[in-house]
Amino acid sequence: MSFDRLIEKIIKTQNPTVVGLDPKLDYVPEYVKKKAFKKYGKTLKGASKAILEFNKGIIDEICDIVPAIKPQAAYYEMYGYEGVKTLSKTISYAQKKGMFVITDAKRNDIGATMEAYATAHLGSVMVDDEEITPFGTDALTVNGYLGTDGIEPLLKLCRENDKGIFVLVKTSNKSSGELQDLKIGDKTVYETMGDMCEKWGATAPGKLGYSSVGAVVGATYPEQLAEMRAKLPNTFFLVPGYGAQGGGAEGVSKAFDANGLGAVVNSSRAVMCAYKKEECEETEYARAARRECIRMKEDILSYLPKISL
Amino acid sequence: MSFDRLIEKIIKTQNPTVVGLDPKLDYVPEYVKKKAFKKYGKTLKGASKAILEFNKGIIDEICDIVPAIKPQAAYYEMYGYEGVKTLSKTISYAQKKGMFVITDAKRNDIGATMEAYATAHLGSVMVDDEEITPFGTDALTVNGYLGTDGIEPLLKLCRENDKGIFVLVKTSNKSSGELQDLKIGDKTVYETMGDMCEKWGATAPGKLGYSSVGAVVGATYPEQLAEMRAKLPNTFFLVPGYGAQGGGAEGVSKAFDANGLGAVVNSSRAVMCAYKKEECEETEYARAARRECIRMKEDILSYLPKISL
Repeated sequence: MSFDRLIEKIIKTQNPTVVGLDPKLDYVPEYVKKKAFKKYGKTLKGASKAILEFNKGIIDEICDIVPAIKPQAAYYEMYGYEGVKTLSKTISYAQKKGMFVITDAKRNDIGATMEAYATAHLGSVMVDDEEITPFGTDALTVNGYLGTDGIEPLLKLCRENDKGIFVLVKTSNKSSGELQDLKIGDKTVYETMGDMCEKWGATAPGKLGYSSVGAVVGATYPEQLAEMRAKLPNTFFLVPGYGAQGGGAEGVSKAFDANGLGAVVNSSRAVMCAYKKEECEETEYARAARRECIRMKEDILSYLPKISL
Repeated sequence: MSFDRLIEKIIKTQNPTVVGLDPKLDYVPEYVKKKAFKKYGKTLKGASKAILEFNKGIIDEICDIVPAIKPQAAYYEMYGYEGVKTLSKTISYAQKKGMFVITDAKRNDIGATMEAYATAHLGSVMVDDEEITPFGTDALTVNGYLGTDGIEPLLKLCRENDKGIFVLVKTSNKSSGELQDLKIGDKTVYETMGDMCEKWGATAPGKLGYSSVGAVVGATYPEQLAEMRAKLPNTFFLVPGYGAQGGGAEGVSKAFDANGLGAVVNSSRAVMCAYKKEECEETEYARAARRECIRMKEDILSYLPKISL
């Protein structure tokens, strides 16, 4: 199953982190933008080409030490269909470089339509007698508000195509508690969603202890990370909110099991904008990203046991 | 505000319905596909061009009698970025023909990222000193699981750019109750979400009684439609599930207020595939869609008062 592949990459790199590629144009060095604008104009296409170039530079520099990237669909859609083309090219480029790709799109819909999303991101579509893979990512974030029939089409592809999903359970933002912390009987909404993940996961188990159904649990709520880790033994966690959003390494360590596995921690802006923080040359942006990845890895590993099965 | 524009179109056409454009390639007549495949091959581009042609044909035939279309993003993403280009072209084509466009994408994320989605679908983005509109739809469906800071960026654009959102409250699918019907104290999750819609809407009120924050409430649950209509006086409803999913006209009539306003009912497959049900010539597909729109309108109006302010 899909998260077995991710876990193997994490063990190999001894790095339980994922780099979020959420590239606003502001993050892209001037020289990269200038080149793209010269060729394609100050257009959505020009912006999208600049972002693709930027992403490729980072992927080239980190693919040997970071197991996965997580492009956030919103930042690509922001540049229209040209941006979505860059999303697609970023996914395939990272996969060619041996990385695991999590598309952070938080898709959700009822069964029949969710099948279309599942096909789009994790499957393949028939065009007459030709079978074509539209985005072909490795894992997708999804929102479980609609219940089982909105998740079932994804589980099918998890089993058949070796894919994974991360269901939103407890998000990292300030107002996440407005709905997620409310009590349904003696359980909160997020605990209820967590239980649904375990249930869905049981139909798509992995070989290494974690099913193909993961959960998003924000680094900004360490006590909930610990609680969820204990309660959801077969659910792999995607942990956003480290760094820029305020989650620290000690806090995120609560998301891991006794083998240093069970979670992958995301950092986006701190990696993409490392060259700004370092105040180094713009042309150093990808190497600065690599340095930040190493710093983050060491920070998180200092609170974990050696990662092994 | 945005739903004022929709309400005015509904009154003018005396038609409180929206046509869902969720075009699987199977729905597209052979002659349309053949032409596109000949020019672009059996590729994602070929499929996407065929779907755009199909959509335009339907829009041309219905734009004088139907106030709005609702393209479902999943069915475009299924054909990769070429499909997303067709989504974009469909939106602008329908708007040029005077229609209101609701992009059904159920987007959701935390504040900073939701800003990117808001920009993508309802706003405009800066590319250096050029301001460009990526998708520019009129209203977007969203999922409120993440709470207020995932909705706030949208409210800003509702106010500034005359846009609207529909928040998922009670969806039309079978398993919608797994989470949505659970009790938080004496209220269900969907009632809690409904209350949040009224609260968010109060910050973006309209002139005609309905705010810019609407709610998705499925036609398959008429008792909840009635209950929500009474409890959420300023929340405009988008009602999916009429027809193919089993919701009848009498049931959906519960979503409307005493003026025959307050809701818009969606039909997708029955309109797109009307030519198959009629067993007429394929080249008649758009006129068959028009006939189905008239049938649906008359069916629903038979349970409503004359639509007026």
